[in-house]
Amino acid sequence: MTGPTAAVIVVGNEVLSAKVEDQNGPWVARRLRELGVRLLAIHVVADRPEEIGAALGLERARASWVFTSGGVGPTHDDVTVAAVAAALGRPLVRLAPLEAALRAVHRRYHAGSEPPEVVLRMADVPEGTRLLGDPSYPTLAVENVILLPGPPRFFRYQFDQLAPLLRSDPFQLAEIHLSVGEERLALVLADVARAHPAVEIGSYPRFDEGAEYRVRVTIESRDAGAVAVALQALLEVLPREWVVRVEGG
Amino acid sequence: MTGPTAAVIVVGNEVLSAKVEDQNGPWVARRLRELGVRLLAIHVVADRPEEIGAALGLERARASWVFTSGGVGPTHDDVTVAAVAAALGRPLVRLAPLEAALRAVHRRYHAGSEPPEVVLRMADVPEGTRLLGDPSYPTLAVENVILLPGPPRFFRYQFDQLAPLLRSDPFQLAEIHLSVGEERLALVLADVARAHPAVEIGSYPRFDEGAEYRVRVTIESRDAGAVAVALQALLEVLPREWVVRVEGG
Repeated sequence: MTGPTAAVIVVGNEVLSAKVEDQNGPWVARRLRELGVRLLAIHVVADRPEEIGAALGLERARASWVFTSGGVGPTHDDVTVAAVAAALGRPLVRLAPLEAALRAVHRRYHAGSEPPEVVLRMADVPEGTRLLGDPSYPTLAVENVILLPGPPRFFRYQFDQLAPLLRSDPFQLAEIHLSVGEERLALVLADVARAHPAVEIGSYPRFDEGAEYRVRVTIESRDAGAVAVALQALLEVLPREWVVRVEGG
Repeated sequence: MTGPTAAVIVVGNEVLSAKVEDQNGPWVARRLRELGVRLLAIHVVADRPEEIGAALGLERARASWVFTSGGVGPTHDDVTVAAVAAALGRPLVRLAPLEAALRAVHRRYHAGSEPPEVVLRMADVPEGTRLLGDPSYPTLAVENVILLPGPPRFFRYQFDQLAPLLRSDPFQLAEIHLSVGEERLALVLADVARAHPAVEIGSYPRFDEGAEYRVRVTIESRDAGAVAVALQALLEVLPREWVVRVEGG
């Protein structure tokens, strides 16, 4: 499947230690899907530069966009910006427009007072960083890496500011719900998948008693014609009495 | 922090394409935490052997245990077992006790009939695979890789069968809830973190209006004494009027 791709790196000691459940990964998976961007992987890693760097090394060469979540605040455990700089081999430099934005936000919430140096350090970013989205709450982007804040409210706001940049052709999806188990479908699905390489065919069993269907088969591609042809091919070889419902296609 | 560690690889086209939200990652993070096992990373990857292999390559050398979730069924998109075999350089061989278990389960649910070959292929596993847990629904383990099924009910059942093998010393956690923002805490936290390398100090701001506190600081280690000492050190340098609440330690 061609088109733009993305990977997500959640910088999340608090997720790994089960203090909170990650909300940003599932949310951005849904939004990327709506935007027609294929999500290649989500990595939840510890708040350590070498961990962030290893995930960046895996993803930035192959994904159109790599989103990081979290670790962009002012405390000692906020290491994402420095980790991205190190992974990209770029020095940290203070970005004047970002410093100005940090000063303006601080003044607004602190009765006009200037921020301490520890806040201004958040303007030290990898050389070549662009500021995207809302100029008052800018999002850092360097090469194809986009750094988003961890708190879900801010993550969502900043992502949605960028969404128009990301939009691509939508995915086309058809589904067949079937009344028999995977063991009776496996060979047929494998044959059709082999004959229709332009689509992806997934098979998702359910095991709850009394369910309306036992397996959901999904067929998808950016190419609506390819989905329709593969759906037809599958319906031709599946006994009609196995088919509970067909959707899309 | 010493002690056993784990990594989780969720094999999940359906998660990446937002057809379902992963339940196994968050669930196993909580369980590992309760068991005293440190979770290093969660990777959600596509149903492709090279993707699973890349994540295994990253994790199996450093984690005590690597858990995979999903991709162990009989259809063409179930590629986890073969991917683990390839990543570990082990041929697939049919495991007689696993074949016997598959036959017994199939007979029970299919009026005594023998399973088709496509079901028995699920007994083709990496050479050297051990069967753990419930002998009727065994869990595959090879080297330090443990293969769990994707459906959350089965994932949880099989994990909990293995839990006694995994248990270690518990984590000790203390928390301080504070009424001021991170910008006023950052330097103090960095100092205490540097002076107390045996503990991990995390800082988690919240931004909702009217919240009882603005930042939650966590201090943790397997060493209860180290947590108590670091907590005391932090309370000594924080102005008393900033402290909303102290928990644990």
